[in-house]
Amino acid sequence: MKQIGVFGATGYAGRELLRLLRVHPGARVAFATGSDPALPSHEEGLEREADAYLLALPHGVSARFAARLRQSRPQAPVIDLSGDLRLPDGEAYRQWYGAEHPAPELLGTAPYGLPELFRERLAGARLVSNPGCYATSMLLPLAPLLEQELVDADDVVIDAKSGATGAGRAPKEHLLFCEVSEDLSAYSPGRRHRHVAEVEAVLQARCGRPVPLTFCPHLLPVRRGILAAIYLRSRRPAGELAAALASRYAGEPFVKLVENPPRLVEVAYTNQCRISVHDAAPGRVVVFSALDNLVKGAAGQAIQNLNLALGWPETQGLEEAA
Amino acid sequence: MKQIGVFGATGYAGRELLRLLRVHPGARVAFATGSDPALPSHEEGLEREADAYLLALPHGVSARFAARLRQSRPQAPVIDLSGDLRLPDGEAYRQWYGAEHPAPELLGTAPYGLPELFRERLAGARLVSNPGCYATSMLLPLAPLLEQELVDADDVVIDAKSGATGAGRAPKEHLLFCEVSEDLSAYSPGRRHRHVAEVEAVLQARCGRPVPLTFCPHLLPVRRGILAAIYLRSRRPAGELAAALASRYAGEPFVKLVENPPRLVEVAYTNQCRISVHDAAPGRVVVFSALDNLVKGAAGQAIQNLNLALGWPETQGLEEAA
Amino acid sequence: MKQIGVFGATGYAGRELLRLLRVHPGARVAFATGSDPALPSHEEGLEREADAYLLALPHGVSARFAARLRQSRPQAPVIDLSGDLRLPDGEAYRQWYGAEHPAPELLGTAPYGLPELFRERLAGARLVSNPGCYATSMLLPLAPLLEQELVDADDVVIDAKSGATGAGRAPKEHLLFCEVSEDLSAYSPGRRHRHVAEVEAVLQARCGRPVPLTFCPHLLPVRRGILAAIYLRSRRPAGELAAALASRYAGEPFVKLVENPPRLVEVAYTNQCRISVHDAAPGRVVVFSALDNLVKGAAGQAIQNLNLALGWPETQGLEEAA
Amino acid sequence: MKQIGVFGATGYAGRELLRLLRVHPGARVAFATGSDPALPSHEEGLEREADAYLLALPHGVSARFAARLRQSRPQAPVIDLSGDLRLPDGEAYRQWYGAEHPAPELLGTAPYGLPELFRERLAGARLVSNPGCYATSMLLPLAPLLEQELVDADDVVIDAKSGATGAGRAPKEHLLFCEVSEDLSAYSPGRRHRHVAEVEAVLQARCGRPVPLTFCPHLLPVRRGILAAIYLRSRRPAGELAAALASRYAGEPFVKLVENPPRLVEVAYTNQCRISVHDAAPGRVVVFSALDNLVKGAAGQAIQNLNLALGWPETQGLEEAA
Repeated sequence: MKQIGVFGATGYAGRELLRLLRVHPGARVAFATGSDPALPSHEEGLEREADAYLLALPHGVSARFAARLRQSRPQAPVIDLSGDLRLPDGEAYRQWYGAEHPAPELLGTAPYGLPELFRERLAGARLVSNPGCYATSMLLPLAPLLEQELVDADDVVIDAKSGATGAGRAPKEHLLFCEVSEDLSAYSPGRRHRHVAEVEAVLQARCGRPVPLTFCPHLLPVRRGILAAIYLRSRRPAGELAAALASRYAGEPFVKLVENPPRLVEVAYTNQCRISVHDAAPGRVVVFSALDNLVKGAAGQAIQNLNLALGWPETQGLEEAA
Repeated sequence: MKQIGVFGATGYAGRELLRLLRVHPGARVAFATGSDPALPSHEEGLEREADAYLLALPHGVSARFAARLRQSRPQAPVIDLSGDLRLPDGEAYRQWYGAEHPAPELLGTAPYGLPELFRERLAGARLVSNPGCYATSMLLPLAPLLEQELVDADDVVIDAKSGATGAGRAPKEHLLFCEVSEDLSAYSPGRRHRHVAEVEAVLQARCGRPVPLTFCPHLLPVRRGILAAIYLRSRRPAGELAAALASRYAGEPFVKLVENPPRLVEVAYTNQCRISVHDAAPGRVVVFSALDNLVKGAAGQAIQNLNLALGWPETQGLEEAA
Repeated sequence: MKQIGVFGATGYAGRELLRLLRVHPGARVAFATGSDPALPSHEEGLEREADAYLLALPHGVSARFAARLRQSRPQAPVIDLSGDLRLPDGEAYRQWYGAEHPAPELLGTAPYGLPELFRERLAGARLVSNPGCYATSMLLPLAPLLEQELVDADDVVIDAKSGATGAGRAPKEHLLFCEVSEDLSAYSPGRRHRHVAEVEAVLQARCGRPVPLTFCPHLLPVRRGILAAIYLRSRRPAGELAAALASRYAGEPFVKLVENPPRLVEVAYTNQCRISVHDAAPGRVVVFSALDNLVKGAAGQAIQNLNLALGWPETQGLEEAA
Repeated sequence: MKQIGVFGATGYAGRELLRLLRVHPGARVAFATGSDPALPSHEEGLEREADAYLLALPHGVSARFAARLRQSRPQAPVIDLSGDLRLPDGEAYRQWYGAEHPAPELLGTAPYGLPELFRERLAGARLVSNPGCYATSMLLPLAPLLEQELVDADDVVIDAKSGATGAGRAPKEHLLFCEVSEDLSAYSPGRRHRHVAEVEAVLQARCGRPVPLTFCPHLLPVRRGILAAIYLRSRRPAGELAAALASRYAGEPFVKLVENPPRLVEVAYTNQCRISVHDAAPGRVVVFSALDNLVKGAAGQAIQNLNLALGWPETQGLEEAA
């Protein structure tokens, strides 16, 4: 039984970490830090012993704690759920996050924690950068299709919709019930959302060429879930693309090809990503990708990475959520 | 004061017609038919006198009533809110609606009731085909951009989201509160929704060439509103497209260019369509279009058409909803 | 056309005032203050001229502005939507609001703005204390029943449920979409909510004896509306109580006795209060009372009071909302 | 590993049974009947072998299947989730269900499956009548308080609110998303809901005197959860009543006394009932009781009863949901 330290347990991702760790057969929560007065502060968390650490802290803060934990407990894996370690260099961080990187010495040291794409780098890793929720929903279908050159790399359009937990738990007027209910709002349209940067970086690295994204996220009046509609150019029929994805993910416990567009409720509270492919106008296909933004999009994927880092079976503690 | 007969007043569009007619200074509801036992049946409605008729009946039924009203009251304008008269011929109807046309003699006789595009044909018309809700949200931004060749006609992708009133009031399991709440579902993905047919027909007629659409509608857990994200190829910056649309719709009371992506709550209960344009990946723009599916997408536009048919000011009775 | 100054136009009640004033035939908004940087501050509002003032400010602040307006513009009616002027004296204010009264010289000078009970005092009034939303939903059914001794005064239980606009627009964690959606929460249970104080004060004054309330409010996952279930002891059948209320409110445009329990959607966006009465266990009846907390529970009632203060027809500008 | 047959697996309670059985370490679903064409019919289910049966069928139908299973498989426990076996005799059934009892020979043979009150009768039982969801939320707090004469038996008022899964999955207009969302509706007010009958019968049997209820249920715009506010007369302070309940339920894994009014989200997806007690007007207290109508109010309690019938630990398979 390993002791796990959780930093930032009062936000939505942090609470989900606690929910998942409660049913994990190999892990126990050693401590959980947070803004709640009943909890130790993040600083106090640095004094506590644990076998591994999960960081659900804001970007700009998280990498600083990662750096200190790497120093003080070099043997203990650290999974960072923030965006701090997802971009390749300080310049990209400056451009997309509008600030100097909080711990530039860590840049390039943390593999990108999408096990279905980077499993070999994640086994035994000591620092992992957990992907963004939207990024996961895009990369799982896009990476194989682009790598196998089944779709055009220069014409990728993603229209994504997320439940409001994705916007965090800090009280803001536009997140009040009376503002979100009975509404739908697009934000950061075009190519401005930060997850664009990490997806483009991963795709460029894997495909050897730039893949410029058009990406429009929307805030949904639901609590959890992401549904992304990915519009692609392809000369192949949808069935062929679906078969390629099904074959690529045949052994994967958390990715499933389905026939009809996946619904949010089908993946809610699970670590699954469900994908479907459909023919559209001539030369076009649409791919749907659905996941729970708090599970496969955050805490569940973090547990998956923790399992890999500690050499445990990758699905441990996630079967129920699978 | 004109007497208006409303057929099909118990569905969501029909109820909205009654709501809007209640505040219309020139119109009174002569009778309203419906499935409610307190109301006359549709057949009984044919016996009633009125100066104009609004038909919120199911497709397949509506055109039959339109035909009978045209015969019995040739001077009384008829606005058909169903899809029966939107397609150019019986063959297209058969293909998209899966049935023989219920009144083929009416095909080609009913102008398409989108006043911002076809006002001249609608003034004084005796039979009007009220557009589909999604179709209105697509055509208002698309038609000017394509006519002015500001965007590519062969690469039009629309990702649309609608409130559940758009799916009607007939009880179906997938429309129950417990099925829709906390969910988002895509349906008829690719190029299968019936509104594709009317939009392609209108665009081809206006642009002189085919405009194949990729169109994916989604069912939202809200009651009313459509938000469409339209992804286009263009060599012009977003600002130029926005300016062209603003100029095209400068005198229009019900179309408004806005800077940020419009929200559903901004147009709820109004007859407005709000449009914004944004730069995306190089060579790509995204256009958002928002309207209330029951007002500008159905009943409000029907009143607008009624006003035109009767020679009234086009905004009459819709100011409040404007 | 009278010029109306609105203080506090960015909260939910303030926004509703603006919505209602827009359709009021006799009133124009002279200015609206608020926290939005585009608006003048509350202090700046004091410099602006107007024929009447509507105050949708927080309690503790509102009475101070009322006092200054009374001094600087003694002829201009002031309608205070806050709780500051609802209690009879500073001691009660201290007990229920936990602070010294911000303008004790005004205590006792502002009639309680429930026109159906105190219309004679409100005609031509220069300072009016607009009732609480829950208080309105309780007093309209309770006052006549208790005055006519149709129910026991010492056994009044109210279980009330309110939409989340009732909790205000200031960002607080417990009001976030993700906290309110799919939940229901009771708060201030028993006899602790501030509206208890104003209702007990009004009832005691009208009945000549104390009427101790048991009152439990709940926060609903809806935006607007209050439904109160009022449990009473009575030796009379429900029908008799309903008849007494119907007779009492026969001439009232905004109170309506109905047969089935009223629903929130029936009164949403209107200035109506709908009431029904039902038999329960022997010796018990239950009375339902429904209103829109932002209209009859706040802004609509304030317009009603404004109309009375200015000598206008009481329903002016509220017909649409009626 | 026991084989469990589930009748009626497509309704909300039936689906919840399948969800819970999936994680039950001792049980496997032998078959599940339902209206879905992929499933065997209920009649076909009678032909299938199983070690125990869970019946989530409509009342009027359920007891008929219970009777046939009792005959054909006398050793296999049957848990009936319908209301058919909850009332003491055919006369009461006729009065409250408006029909002749479908299997009168079973009346009186099925203990009432509320383990916290009737555990001794449920251990090893072969036919169990699973309580109603509202009934469970009322009986758990009411029974001990009335048995210990801590509150008046002749003045019990319950105001209860339920998520819409409580109304079932059969498509009905009033259960559509667009009818339930943004609304709250009371129904069967006073003393008319069928659960009144089973609660009064249980309380009378346990207290030796009639306990007439006033009971008003409400339909909430949430999917799952019941919150009941129970208004009682008592000369004791709330703290004393809470202590009595805490002591009574000290060893119970699924009942928990809490300080603040319990929220729906705290009990969602769990088999818990949470209870709080609060002082109100003099001589009055209010008790809140919250549970998940599909778990402790239906499927979870059925599993609890199944465990008792089969001699398994009572919490088996429900820990996660605890």
